[in-house]
Amino acid sequence: MSDDNKVVVVGSVALDDVQTPFGRREVSLGGSAVYFSWACSLFSKVSMIGVIGDDFPDEHVRMLEERGIDISGLERVRGKTFHWRGRYDFDLNIAHTLDTQLNVFAEFSPKLLDYQREAKYLFLANIDPALQLDVVRQMKAPRIVAADTMNFWIDGKRDDLEKVIGEIDYLIINDAEARQLAGEGNLVTACRKILERGPEALVVKQGEYGVTMFHAGKGNKGMEIFSAPSVPLDSVIDPTGAGDSFAGAFMGYIASEKKVNDSVIRRAVIMGCVVASFTVEGFSLDRLKEVDEKSIRERFSRLKKISYFDDL
Amino acid sequence: MSDDNKVVVVGSVALDDVQTPFGRREVSLGGSAVYFSWACSLFSKVSMIGVIGDDFPDEHVRMLEERGIDISGLERVRGKTFHWRGRYDFDLNIAHTLDTQLNVFAEFSPKLLDYQREAKYLFLANIDPALQLDVVRQMKAPRIVAADTMNFWIDGKRDDLEKVIGEIDYLIINDAEARQLAGEGNLVTACRKILERGPEALVVKQGEYGVTMFHAGKGNKGMEIFSAPSVPLDSVIDPTGAGDSFAGAFMGYIASEKKVNDSVIRRAVIMGCVVASFTVEGFSLDRLKEVDEKSIRERFSRLKKISYFDDL
Repeated sequence: MSDDNKVVVVGSVALDDVQTPFGRREVSLGGSAVYFSWACSLFSKVSMIGVIGDDFPDEHVRMLEERGIDISGLERVRGKTFHWRGRYDFDLNIAHTLDTQLNVFAEFSPKLLDYQREAKYLFLANIDPALQLDVVRQMKAPRIVAADTMNFWIDGKRDDLEKVIGEIDYLIINDAEARQLAGEGNLVTACRKILERGPEALVVKQGEYGVTMFHAGKGNKGMEIFSAPSVPLDSVIDPTGAGDSFAGAFMGYIASEKKVNDSVIRRAVIMGCVVASFTVEGFSLDRLKEVDEKSIRERFSRLKKISYFDDL
Repeated sequence: MSDDNKVVVVGSVALDDVQTPFGRREVSLGGSAVYFSWACSLFSKVSMIGVIGDDFPDEHVRMLEERGIDISGLERVRGKTFHWRGRYDFDLNIAHTLDTQLNVFAEFSPKLLDYQREAKYLFLANIDPALQLDVVRQMKAPRIVAADTMNFWIDGKRDDLEKVIGEIDYLIINDAEARQLAGEGNLVTACRKILERGPEALVVKQGEYGVTMFHAGKGNKGMEIFSAPSVPLDSVIDPTGAGDSFAGAFMGYIASEKKVNDSVIRRAVIMGCVVASFTVEGFSLDRLKEVDEKSIRERFSRLKKISYFDDL
């Protein structure tokens, strides 16, 4: 892995309180940039841009460093770290936010270091679209820019968000968000509409049902669709971070390959599903931390077998 | 197709009032046995057992006959035909039942004709488990018996339903029903539990997300899983009958093949998804009636392409 294909991520670094039917965890390491970076680091070098307060434990910082994640862009400022408190009930597909304290994240104004501006791959995690836009514009000549967003920004910052969508290659969102963004109940039509606004691909996360990617076809080819199943799991402990780990593995895998073509992007989606499947098997990064190449390859093969059927 | 592999279905024949965001249709041909039979007839001979009242239009009867569906077991009695009135809102995955009038269906007591008792394939559509049980026991030596059910019977007729589950090979239900039946939130664990009660396979319908099949492994092999995506559709007009057309094509395809092995069952699931995708593109049997071999093969290939990815 050369620095050439280093991935940069801008997002939240958080201390989360999470409650699920299987337990609770307080003040635990979380945030989109953290899950993304860890997952991405399994495939590629990654540089994290974020902000933490003076309550953020040094052990977390050390852990990220030891993993080889570049944290030069992780700024520590006076105040408290971003704090999310949420609950999942019986239906683990739905997160109920009980409290969000932005704290130091409220004044977050990401400034990329010179070498980060040269990166080939950028992921804009789910933050204010105005910030996302500011970050994209700091980049020199990225090969691929991907972004996530959420209903809160679709409702409240539509104009900025539309600008972001016009400047990115891949949009990675969940299916309710895709429908909301397009103002269209049918997912296929919704994605067609969004692709007309600029992105080359739309990666739609569907929780336990897997991921569907819609790819703008070239010329007369029309929209291409790829459907990936999720890894069937006997035990889902905490879905927090699933989407960001998906994105991290997806971008990391793409960055690790020489070419970006249909075959690579499809495998990247599968890698995303594989890594996300580990994340949800534990609280925080508990399970993700244990992941190695062998366990990744094993689940990749499993998804291959799960989705295979013979021709007629 | 020899009579040997004829499929028998027992279920409802209905006149439906359906309202969706795309229109409404009144007193239109519906019912589980009707959707099942039509879909099944695309692959295999099929014999329908059901009951209609004297209000049931002759043209529907003629249409089924012209399709080659054996309606010797379709009994006409005095009274009104089973009538379902339902509505689908923005989320087409959820049917809201406004009214159910059992009418002549209330006294339905299916009696199989001698040659039907000899059939190799039986599908018990979603009816009272006591009737399902009675029908299974009329069969001589079926190769495969499959059944559908719903929350209403899981709640209200648990004992009879458990007996049915103990006597069938495949259970074809939706994922909320699988969870409810097992009393278990995790789908994989839920299916594992249900398979322990006897069935060889559990086919879990997940609406627009496709279908996942859980197959009891032999010996030490453990449970096998197959995930099939749905056909992405730009226009879904009316989801009524999707599940029954799925089951019809699934059983019909299996009956059309000499052997029943993993490869055949997987292709049967895909065939189910293909045929169901036509059903939902129109009200009643409007779209399903137009389906031919070419259009089926086309969508089958499409699903192959949609789910394909290269090995690492």
